[in-house]
Amino acid sequence: MIAVLKQGVSKQQIDNLCNWLKEQGVDVHISEGKYYTVLGLIGDTSKIDMELLEDLEIVDSVKRISEPFKSANRKFHPEDTVIEVGDLKIGGGNFQLIAGPCSVESEEQILEVAESVKASGATILRGGAFKPRTSPYDFQGLKADGIELLLEAKAKTGMPIITEIMNANHLPLFEHVDIIQVGARNMQNFELLKELGKIDKPILLKRGLANTLKELLMSAEYIMAGGNEKVILCERGIRTFETYTRNTLDLSAVPMLRELTHLPVVVDPSHATGIARLVKPMALAAAAAGADGIMIEVHNNPAKALCDGPQSLTPEQFKDVAGKIRKILEVVRE
Amino acid sequence: MIAVLKQGVSKQQIDNLCNWLKEQGVDVHISEGKYYTVLGLIGDTSKIDMELLEDLEIVDSVKRISEPFKSANRKFHPEDTVIEVGDLKIGGGNFQLIAGPCSVESEEQILEVAESVKASGATILRGGAFKPRTSPYDFQGLKADGIELLLEAKAKTGMPIITEIMNANHLPLFEHVDIIQVGARNMQNFELLKELGKIDKPILLKRGLANTLKELLMSAEYIMAGGNEKVILCERGIRTFETYTRNTLDLSAVPMLRELTHLPVVVDPSHATGIARLVKPMALAAAAAGADGIMIEVHNNPAKALCDGPQSLTPEQFKDVAGKIRKILEVVRE
Amino acid sequence: MIAVLKQGVSKQQIDNLCNWLKEQGVDVHISEGKYYTVLGLIGDTSKIDMELLEDLEIVDSVKRISEPFKSANRKFHPEDTVIEVGDLKIGGGNFQLIAGPCSVESEEQILEVAESVKASGATILRGGAFKPRTSPYDFQGLKADGIELLLEAKAKTGMPIITEIMNANHLPLFEHVDIIQVGARNMQNFELLKELGKIDKPILLKRGLANTLKELLMSAEYIMAGGNEKVILCERGIRTFETYTRNTLDLSAVPMLRELTHLPVVVDPSHATGIARLVKPMALAAAAAGADGIMIEVHNNPAKALCDGPQSLTPEQFKDVAGKIRKILEVVRE
Amino acid sequence: MIAVLKQGVSKQQIDNLCNWLKEQGVDVHISEGKYYTVLGLIGDTSKIDMELLEDLEIVDSVKRISEPFKSANRKFHPEDTVIEVGDLKIGGGNFQLIAGPCSVESEEQILEVAESVKASGATILRGGAFKPRTSPYDFQGLKADGIELLLEAKAKTGMPIITEIMNANHLPLFEHVDIIQVGARNMQNFELLKELGKIDKPILLKRGLANTLKELLMSAEYIMAGGNEKVILCERGIRTFETYTRNTLDLSAVPMLRELTHLPVVVDPSHATGIARLVKPMALAAAAAGADGIMIEVHNNPAKALCDGPQSLTPEQFKDVAGKIRKILEVVRE
Repeated sequence: MIAVLKQGVSKQQIDNLCNWLKEQGVDVHISEGKYYTVLGLIGDTSKIDMELLEDLEIVDSVKRISEPFKSANRKFHPEDTVIEVGDLKIGGGNFQLIAGPCSVESEEQILEVAESVKASGATILRGGAFKPRTSPYDFQGLKADGIELLLEAKAKTGMPIITEIMNANHLPLFEHVDIIQVGARNMQNFELLKELGKIDKPILLKRGLANTLKELLMSAEYIMAGGNEKVILCERGIRTFETYTRNTLDLSAVPMLRELTHLPVVVDPSHATGIARLVKPMALAAAAAGADGIMIEVHNNPAKALCDGPQSLTPEQFKDVAGKIRKILEVVRE
Repeated sequence: MIAVLKQGVSKQQIDNLCNWLKEQGVDVHISEGKYYTVLGLIGDTSKIDMELLEDLEIVDSVKRISEPFKSANRKFHPEDTVIEVGDLKIGGGNFQLIAGPCSVESEEQILEVAESVKASGATILRGGAFKPRTSPYDFQGLKADGIELLLEAKAKTGMPIITEIMNANHLPLFEHVDIIQVGARNMQNFELLKELGKIDKPILLKRGLANTLKELLMSAEYIMAGGNEKVILCERGIRTFETYTRNTLDLSAVPMLRELTHLPVVVDPSHATGIARLVKPMALAAAAAGADGIMIEVHNNPAKALCDGPQSLTPEQFKDVAGKIRKILEVVRE
Repeated sequence: MIAVLKQGVSKQQIDNLCNWLKEQGVDVHISEGKYYTVLGLIGDTSKIDMELLEDLEIVDSVKRISEPFKSANRKFHPEDTVIEVGDLKIGGGNFQLIAGPCSVESEEQILEVAESVKASGATILRGGAFKPRTSPYDFQGLKADGIELLLEAKAKTGMPIITEIMNANHLPLFEHVDIIQVGARNMQNFELLKELGKIDKPILLKRGLANTLKELLMSAEYIMAGGNEKVILCERGIRTFETYTRNTLDLSAVPMLRELTHLPVVVDPSHATGIARLVKPMALAAAAAGADGIMIEVHNNPAKALCDGPQSLTPEQFKDVAGKIRKILEVVRE
Repeated sequence: MIAVLKQGVSKQQIDNLCNWLKEQGVDVHISEGKYYTVLGLIGDTSKIDMELLEDLEIVDSVKRISEPFKSANRKFHPEDTVIEVGDLKIGGGNFQLIAGPCSVESEEQILEVAESVKASGATILRGGAFKPRTSPYDFQGLKADGIELLLEAKAKTGMPIITEIMNANHLPLFEHVDIIQVGARNMQNFELLKELGKIDKPILLKRGLANTLKELLMSAEYIMAGGNEKVILCERGIRTFETYTRNTLDLSAVPMLRELTHLPVVVDPSHATGIARLVKPMALAAAAAGADGIMIEVHNNPAKALCDGPQSLTPEQFKDVAGKIRKILEVVRE
């Protein structure tokens, strides 16, 4: 950690600060420039409260050199983490294709979609039971019944399932769920993350709409600090000024995270763009960028069928996308 | 609500869509242009799932004309809401000055700060007991003990207290807290909001770092839909590309929210800028923009005292700010 | 165009507004709802000043249904535009790989890089002669001499060249340049765009750091309105809150622009990320997303060679990327 | 300047880099930590190309400690710059109120508005002659005729005038203009800035929609480096995700710029919000935040008069705002 002091700071103030820093257990190297004095803090700086330091009157700015994340940091864990999901693996060269409806709506719907996406190459079934909605007046999901229906689809198809949790008190309902998803809006719900750190089950952690990669890794750290190291990261688009797309899919997050961490990285192109027509090109791009998994929404909605004729992503369309993803993976891995 | 259909949509598709919309209970007016057909939906459109509609293949875009928030909407509730906090009122021309330390650290600290800010004109005492921190390794607050110390300060000074909640399971600890704060990171923790909707106590709801005013109002709606209409909104800075300041304080949110809603609006200039030197000008600006309250951090930190000599915001400095805020309120209210 | 009027607007005000709109040559359909009146404007609404309309006291909001761009609009020009660059073509299924150094520095450098990238599959040579720099104290390019050196490289290798213009007064220097680039900072330098509309030469127009796709298309429109329809669009990253990467490459812009316009779309992954290690995965992702061209910086800098040993993107590395791009294009085009 | 080197860099590479840095004329202090080596560069680091350094394979990150702006830097010029505009002064405690129409439309309009705003306390007249418009099909201003009309209003009222330039070739038309405005979209049109650095006339430089304060100061530096030190900075709102307001007015820029630079800072609340109803509260907030001037649009548009009845900001309304601004300035200056 480096602390740059302001111009005109007195010798006494510098000494006081250095003594206080040494009491926190770090060594301090002082370099005096013409306009600034720079303190290099050496040792275990993770206990230094960076915000407190930055807030001192005599401090101009603070720069953390070693990243604040530890368990998730590739520096201390160079090999890719491989996470087991039922009989499958994700990470370390193991790619999984996750598909299913936005919301679980009925037994018929989830079974039909599950069998269709399985036939087209999906390996994990997704479906929302608890739905975070901006409006309290919108449909909030089938909740416990939705999880029951997902488990039924799992039993019928043999596919592992992933679904979102919104409240740690609901954990008992997730006992047979294979991967628990934390949604973008809960990425910094630290109380929920702490509870998920106590269980032994893969967690798919979605990046918040306005969260940096560093914050995403710090949230993974909350889970891992509790003992659960099975964290899968998910890029799903960030909030920008562009309005044609719902969010801006930040695919550079995939290679950047690969450098920073050993955890698997999955991409969700459906929520990122909010436009079914963009799912195919962005799914192929995610595969080319090196994602360990891709999560795609496949609809099977009678209301939509009525109005739209062919559904937004039919089984045929999904099959086409899945096939091309496989070919791109071959090119990337050569 | 208006739905714009794509070019080349068939008569049959339009009829199917209109029939489905009418089944949802709304009337449909059709205007056909050269390149587009526009449907005007009339009646109670709050039950129409805007995202589902937008996602249909035949739909180009959807525009909600009436805002999706109801209880918070000034259109249906033209008078300002006035919320009672102990013997004080906030909103409808009643201004309150909230001050106190970032974190409660000790009995001595909170009592000293409380008495000092009261003497300088603060009317409500703030202090963090449960602290949301980006890193699991940072200090997480004194928790229940912190609330005890706040209650002691309340007993000694007579000031109502405000402190943040992070988990609905902690609600019993907040029984004697006067205002419960929901932090920016939990603004869309809908499970927490629903629980706060069931109690009868003022809630200060902070705007999320990347949340629009509409989303802030929808989150207020979650609380109000449960029966608790005592919601105070708080602007505390949004995330932008600028890096000199920690966040960008969006003061135009104050007059904009005044138009959209009847709820009181408070501004927190301390967290927004992250720079003590900017607190005074931004607090004065917030008063000039028409805020119903201002929340200011006043530090009293021995570690900082050691290094910094005079503290970042001394009692004297706070007194100066408080006095000028009062004079600006006089000019604004004339 | 749709104009939503505010609640409580009088009959007289609506009549006045409708009469004024009719004088502008559009028809008006009125739909009255319970809380709002909606005006549908039909006919050639491109002459209506949307901002003026939106600013009227009685107007709540205005929504343009037909896009404000015409010449660039795929609706009025369904086939892909194919632009000739020397003997090459770009757009409509014709892909080009553009490569070269950030700045032209010397005869030796540009010739060496040109031959190396040509051997690895690049088809167009890039190189900066006029360099827009944030600081007036930074190197501003070799200017006219840089263009001379590029023309020499063109003569030796037969590759068409692309280089950036910053001032319309410099146009005579660009007579033998094959594609003129407009940099991100000049995307809304309308005076420059107008001058480029008067010449008959392909223009590569880079998206501004904070510009929407609609604004990018409106800037293309400035060039096309002058008569020059040879516009190539370029996504090069937008400004967001993320700081690990210099900008956020918005690859969803590629399929989105393909829907909105018939113009070719090129991606520049080098400037977007600012990190050489991310260029390969993002270049492959751009190919998978459907780009008509990719522009890559290949360095050949003795200062860097000294410090870095192997250069950031060696001819060998570029050859590898170029080969994989070709294979991904085969998958995408199948 | 500080350069943090990556883990595992060899002694030889560090020596090569240090030698190269010393050749550039700076001293280098090396601190070796467990995971990183940190180089402190001491001396005149303004000649070091920060981007080139950051791009080296062995460099993790670079932090500039001394700001890259010099002429604009308060560190090297502690006293406020006071700029003379006709008989008026701006900066160093001298406040000016700038008002006038968005566009100059006719002799009658500009004279009427000029006299009205002068009577209400405005001291400088604004009006657009060259109008940058997103669409080539929108009204582009009266151009040279607009400047003539402004000069006529100046002659009649004695008010100095400010108007925008878009092309350095138009400079002869601006001979009698008192302040030349550079619009937000041209903030990084470096060719234009360089030309404005050669003249002896105050320049009002607007912050770009997505530009940081550092970039704003670097653009001021372009003008000042040419010899023209009469630069007035203008905050006019930045682009964020919020859509209720056109832009987000960043008032914290006012006190932040006051720390960083000695140049006067003006605020334009009209363009920032795009909503006439928000102009008054945001103008008062700007005064409270410490602005040296405020620029307000006052309309006088027959088309609007027709539709709107009372105009958006009538002379009476402007008079009210102007009066309250004066009172707030008294409070701030006490």
